[in-house]
Amino acid sequence: MLDFEAALARASSEVALIPRGASEAIAAQCNVELHDVDAIVAASGNAGSLAIPLVKSLTESVAKVSPEAARYVHWGATSQDVIDTAMVLCTRRLLVAIDFELSSIRSTLARLAGVHQNTPVLARTLMQAAQVTSFGLKCAQWLAPIARSQWALRELAPHALCLQLGGAVGTRATLGERGAEVARKMATELKLANPATAWHTGRDRWLRLGSELAILSGSLGKVARDLSLMGQSEIAEVAEGAASGRGGSSAMPHKRNPVGAMIVLAAALRAPHRMAALLSAMPQEHERGLGNWQAELAEWAGLCTSVLSACTAMANTLNSLQCFPERMLRNVAEQRGMVFAEAAAVVIARALGKSQSHALVETAAARAHAEGGQLQSALIDALDADPKRFAAVDRAALDSAFSMAEAARFAGTHVDAVLQELNTEYGLKNSHAF
Amino acid sequence: MLDFEAALARASSEVALIPRGASEAIAAQCNVELHDVDAIVAASGNAGSLAIPLVKSLTESVAKVSPEAARYVHWGATSQDVIDTAMVLCTRRLLVAIDFELSSIRSTLARLAGVHQNTPVLARTLMQAAQVTSFGLKCAQWLAPIARSQWALRELAPHALCLQLGGAVGTRATLGERGAEVARKMATELKLANPATAWHTGRDRWLRLGSELAILSGSLGKVARDLSLMGQSEIAEVAEGAASGRGGSSAMPHKRNPVGAMIVLAAALRAPHRMAALLSAMPQEHERGLGNWQAELAEWAGLCTSVLSACTAMANTLNSLQCFPERMLRNVAEQRGMVFAEAAAVVIARALGKSQSHALVETAAARAHAEGGQLQSALIDALDADPKRFAAVDRAALDSAFSMAEAARFAGTHVDAVLQELNTEYGLKNSHAF
Amino acid sequence: MLDFEAALARASSEVALIPRGASEAIAAQCNVELHDVDAIVAASGNAGSLAIPLVKSLTESVAKVSPEAARYVHWGATSQDVIDTAMVLCTRRLLVAIDFELSSIRSTLARLAGVHQNTPVLARTLMQAAQVTSFGLKCAQWLAPIARSQWALRELAPHALCLQLGGAVGTRATLGERGAEVARKMATELKLANPATAWHTGRDRWLRLGSELAILSGSLGKVARDLSLMGQSEIAEVAEGAASGRGGSSAMPHKRNPVGAMIVLAAALRAPHRMAALLSAMPQEHERGLGNWQAELAEWAGLCTSVLSACTAMANTLNSLQCFPERMLRNVAEQRGMVFAEAAAVVIARALGKSQSHALVETAAARAHAEGGQLQSALIDALDADPKRFAAVDRAALDSAFSMAEAARFAGTHVDAVLQELNTEYGLKNSHAF
Amino acid sequence: MLDFEAALARASSEVALIPRGASEAIAAQCNVELHDVDAIVAASGNAGSLAIPLVKSLTESVAKVSPEAARYVHWGATSQDVIDTAMVLCTRRLLVAIDFELSSIRSTLARLAGVHQNTPVLARTLMQAAQVTSFGLKCAQWLAPIARSQWALRELAPHALCLQLGGAVGTRATLGERGAEVARKMATELKLANPATAWHTGRDRWLRLGSELAILSGSLGKVARDLSLMGQSEIAEVAEGAASGRGGSSAMPHKRNPVGAMIVLAAALRAPHRMAALLSAMPQEHERGLGNWQAELAEWAGLCTSVLSACTAMANTLNSLQCFPERMLRNVAEQRGMVFAEAAAVVIARALGKSQSHALVETAAARAHAEGGQLQSALIDALDADPKRFAAVDRAALDSAFSMAEAARFAGTHVDAVLQELNTEYGLKNSHAF
Repeated sequence: MLDFEAALARASSEVALIPRGASEAIAAQCNVELHDVDAIVAASGNAGSLAIPLVKSLTESVAKVSPEAARYVHWGATSQDVIDTAMVLCTRRLLVAIDFELSSIRSTLARLAGVHQNTPVLARTLMQAAQVTSFGLKCAQWLAPIARSQWALRELAPHALCLQLGGAVGTRATLGERGAEVARKMATELKLANPATAWHTGRDRWLRLGSELAILSGSLGKVARDLSLMGQSEIAEVAEGAASGRGGSSAMPHKRNPVGAMIVLAAALRAPHRMAALLSAMPQEHERGLGNWQAELAEWAGLCTSVLSACTAMANTLNSLQCFPERMLRNVAEQRGMVFAEAAAVVIARALGKSQSHALVETAAARAHAEGGQLQSALIDALDADPKRFAAVDRAALDSAFSMAEAARFAGTHVDAVLQELNTEYGLKNSHAF
Repeated sequence: MLDFEAALARASSEVALIPRGASEAIAAQCNVELHDVDAIVAASGNAGSLAIPLVKSLTESVAKVSPEAARYVHWGATSQDVIDTAMVLCTRRLLVAIDFELSSIRSTLARLAGVHQNTPVLARTLMQAAQVTSFGLKCAQWLAPIARSQWALRELAPHALCLQLGGAVGTRATLGERGAEVARKMATELKLANPATAWHTGRDRWLRLGSELAILSGSLGKVARDLSLMGQSEIAEVAEGAASGRGGSSAMPHKRNPVGAMIVLAAALRAPHRMAALLSAMPQEHERGLGNWQAELAEWAGLCTSVLSACTAMANTLNSLQCFPERMLRNVAEQRGMVFAEAAAVVIARALGKSQSHALVETAAARAHAEGGQLQSALIDALDADPKRFAAVDRAALDSAFSMAEAARFAGTHVDAVLQELNTEYGLKNSHAF
Repeated sequence: MLDFEAALARASSEVALIPRGASEAIAAQCNVELHDVDAIVAASGNAGSLAIPLVKSLTESVAKVSPEAARYVHWGATSQDVIDTAMVLCTRRLLVAIDFELSSIRSTLARLAGVHQNTPVLARTLMQAAQVTSFGLKCAQWLAPIARSQWALRELAPHALCLQLGGAVGTRATLGERGAEVARKMATELKLANPATAWHTGRDRWLRLGSELAILSGSLGKVARDLSLMGQSEIAEVAEGAASGRGGSSAMPHKRNPVGAMIVLAAALRAPHRMAALLSAMPQEHERGLGNWQAELAEWAGLCTSVLSACTAMANTLNSLQCFPERMLRNVAEQRGMVFAEAAAVVIARALGKSQSHALVETAAARAHAEGGQLQSALIDALDADPKRFAAVDRAALDSAFSMAEAARFAGTHVDAVLQELNTEYGLKNSHAF
Repeated sequence: MLDFEAALARASSEVALIPRGASEAIAAQCNVELHDVDAIVAASGNAGSLAIPLVKSLTESVAKVSPEAARYVHWGATSQDVIDTAMVLCTRRLLVAIDFELSSIRSTLARLAGVHQNTPVLARTLMQAAQVTSFGLKCAQWLAPIARSQWALRELAPHALCLQLGGAVGTRATLGERGAEVARKMATELKLANPATAWHTGRDRWLRLGSELAILSGSLGKVARDLSLMGQSEIAEVAEGAASGRGGSSAMPHKRNPVGAMIVLAAALRAPHRMAALLSAMPQEHERGLGNWQAELAEWAGLCTSVLSACTAMANTLNSLQCFPERMLRNVAEQRGMVFAEAAAVVIARALGKSQSHALVETAAARAHAEGGQLQSALIDALDADPKRFAAVDRAALDSAFSMAEAARFAGTHVDAVLQELNTEYGLKNSHAF
């Protein structure tokens, strides 16, 4: 907020709306060390906004040095101008921090996608074992939405990080004909976009940025959901590293609480409601709204801190993630070949047609299920029982249909496609977006 | 859904995964007239998805013509593939309809912004009369967020309108090495984007489109909120036209229910919760989720119909909007000059400094308030009472500070800036986005 | 809606506001068979409410029989009166259906809690194996919140199921001094509560009922979440029965999609947003609101259908639930005693104090973890290594600390407490609540 | 949290689970002055919960006095036990504060309902002038939902304000057979309900309390919405008093920002999303959830502070509310009789039947509308134009149909009914609910 006030004073003096000396006196006091922040916060409750006690504190500070200059503090601006702009400046810092964490997540997941490109892991649908995929493909599919969010945040930031300067009703009436010039100079100094007019009640650009944060939290939540499921004691395919010093229990070394996933899931649960509140606040009355803008302010801060904490937790979690490919293999193996039923049916169908193939697999699966045996053995038994009838079945192909390595390798071919698409369509260019 | 099945069959036969004759037999049955839609819908309740009874109905139809071809219906696809793609195809139609309404809204608001560029109207903040602005500027500020949403929807559509084709677990395992080619051909036929991989549980691109719809509904809601406030019986600055045949009351000609605003406000109230539900559904488990994808489907349809109905209602409302500039003037006049207090203080401050000016205006305002008189008269009385002391006050400028026309004209200058920014930064280019 | 119109006509004629013949003519036409429902629904879109075309259709029907009587159709009522009351009448039917399913759920879960009172099952916290509890206690803890919701719905219904009869602005002006009597008679006929005044914009009693439905959906969602986790292929402690004919896969007998849990989870994901929309709609303007009431209507129906479908799916799921106590045991056993670490430490602490006990268990656990062995063996080895020092350790108690049966039996003692509390505090009395 | 730890220690020593001396040593350190709160809060970020650093700080404090006693700190409890119970204890204080404000609101609104029982004011529907009601009835209708919430909070509190004591997995395993007795003693000391079992993942009773807070915020929001509409500069029927020292503007005495309404509206906008988040968090996994409980905690605090601030702001606003009955009258008068059209039509219908009456009023209204005249005059002119035909019209009754006082008096009769219903059905009895 003090950065806004300093920039306003400087710009106003440059266009001769206020004396040069006044701007220097004001800017000199725009230093947070010179103000009693706790007192300003406390007073904001009764005042209904942070701006009123801050401007009062600043005016008093300036007045001690120059009573004349004190008359020009906040000249031409309204409370919402300084608060919105300060919120933009704070959000910019947040975006830098988020971008940093996203780069870390991106590189870790890309590395894991490569290392485990052909590592077999159960593919699960509707929370049931279904077929086999590769752990690398899972990582690539976790990565892609997060990478797109990083790209989108950089695209949106230059539109959303706007100066707010409208005066009482958005017309900059007090600044008169020099208003546009003041705004341009302020925007340059604060390195913000300079919109054609005030956005006191036109919040779409701001909400577009907020939406992307909410979407990012959902994409992170998807990763955390999967990690928490894969990290269950009975599944144990991954574990959060002890590096973070959290989640461990000295008495129960088997227990490694997934604290990183916990933080991300909590954020993913909360962020949608922040977003709904921001959207609900959009129909703001006339030139400045009653209650809705105030609600937006509070919700925005909540959204931002949730998402940043989720990014940090996810980056840390992935950095120290322990992956157990042998357990992944074992978990596939324990499904006794059932997850290859569809692949086997396809092979047999080539020889016998789809309906005979289906019946054969169905019978074999029922037998394997009842006896606790392997589907592959049950199928071979069935084929061997009538060699003449089933001569056309390609035994080598059938064998390969039951190969975990083969299924994972095939899944792994998609990893390259995903990474290439990210590079060509969502490659990061705008490194100075914020 | 039938378009998907036909495209799948054709693409599969082109790459020789299925016989050419099969694809022709299947495509011939992909005609909604040949299926009992009510029965399919009814069966979907128990089946847990629309895809299962639809594929059954299609298979039966094909089997009547060619039992051989029936074996290849839906070959290589999973339920979510056909449902997601169908949802994309339906959404594309919706986007075309929304785009059409937005063009109408855009041109009406641009016209109103021009016609009323200098029409004085009360500027209101926190639901209180504050200063004077121009009705044209209000219209331009209503327009800008809506125009940006139209632009954004066209930008987002090519990323979001994607083919879904992943097979059971997103690896297209059944399609084997030809999977990528099948997808490419299907995407071309259906005129959809062809993503690098399945997006069964990676919903960010889809949600980005949904977010923009939700933001649009908020921007429309802001217009409706203002129209409903300006249309109150006691304010009567605008009225919804009777053209729509709605909202009127034959017995009470004074009563013109703002039915258009009602529809838009209802949508703006509901859409944020649709969005929150969509975001909440993002952390979907593993390769395909349990319950969250199903919830997303239902919520998506609700969001789409809400937003389209809001667009249509807003377009109709604006087309037949009645504006009453004389009443706008009268409403300003009834504030007895109080809304010019700040402007007057600025003029006087040039002569007397800010604090004396402030005291003078404050006293005059209190007097005018107590006596029910005009602020301007009270101020002139005060200045006249001590001509020597107040000689430096620029009387002509003071007079002009109380001019409604002057205030509106100044506000009106922002209209050009807004329209120009829209043209340069958010001009519509991508006419074939959908 | 027709029930409302018939009751209104009868009550009005009984107090001589309208002729007796008119009420008979009107009531005779209040039969849905006599009206073109599709046409009424279609017309409601343009009219902005269902009431307008319905009243028109009813008036026309009556006019064919008695033009005189037609003048008294809907006399003294407003659109919101008939729609709100109809919504109340529909909701009552829904509550009856929900109450029926809840009784089923209640008895099934109470039975399971009894049967499995002492069945050991892993207790899991933060998605990690923690200790041992009993499956019966899990069932009792699933049951309690649902039973309380059934109780609460019966308590709330008589307050929420209210007649709406306020006329245009809630004063029943057209009915004059007989308004109260008309309302009393209508409430009696429709078996609804007769509130002191219209509740056009006072929705708290209605929302209280809605809240309970939303809470119920959350409690059902908790059960579904647990069932879906316990039913994972790798855990396999429960499975949804095939009785429902859903979720099975003929080719993959290992795969039993938890379709019931899916429906309940989807409802639990959606209902909170319905509730938020209903709450957001509460600040309705003046005597009847603009847009918010209309939004409430649509959201209410969505909430109701979600919750009923969740109740039905849960009742069916539980009725055919397959429980596998052997697998529950095996899953505990595979934790190699780690889940008894805390219990063991308590026993040893009695002899050695808390810190020595902790160190001993920690070392043994680390060894068991590293060697893939049992914690109990590692501990006994450690104690045996220095018999003198550890003589005071109660070996029988230590043995019992590692007993699955013992841990489950202890957990099972809570089942009785839960069931007793439900009976004494939340016993169902009000069997005619609806 | 320290109250919980002290009560736990005392209860455990009374049942001889821990030595008496230990409980005294522990309880002596359960004093917030002895702990570094900032350090505990700071450490909670990394620990993932407030309980871990608090228990550590307490253990260290106790250890300085008695290393032996330190071993029994937090004995048998889990982090969620102490945090949930602390949240309950904080919420109880909040409920006391809310109850106090609600009593104030209740008495102020009851007083206003009495004073203005017969004060005419425009009744407005869909934001349009409709008929005439009394300001007292508006006040009574604002009051009723708030009074019901006060009643409901007192009813719910004894069910929701529960001790949490379950140990690691909700079975109180460490406390063994004495668990139930420990819980009973703790509940007595802390004056909380003692539920049959832990409610770690059974949150319905807690959510029921939260729902009522959310409903209350909606009911307060309805009042604030109406006050903000009635307080618009152009309507000016009420104003927030200056007593609060807020919302005024020295330079613009006409401007009285409705700061109280602003706070209440912001809370009413935000609370629904808190509630949705709490409901979304209900499906918590197994014995203790991952992320959802943590999200609930944060959202709960947000809901509570929102609602308390809304209650306080509303109580203050109503206490200093300025009402302007003359302006209410004038606003009715400016509608030129149109708002009596329905009443007039009813009178005329008695003589001429509904359709002739309707036509007559419609014509007169159109004329009055076109000429800017009074509906009453236009009607009388029409009747006078054909005295014979219209002889049966009761002129005195027609006159009375246009009486503001008469309409208000009739509306006012409902005030008594509302107040009486509140007394008989929602009278406050349970003064020691909290």
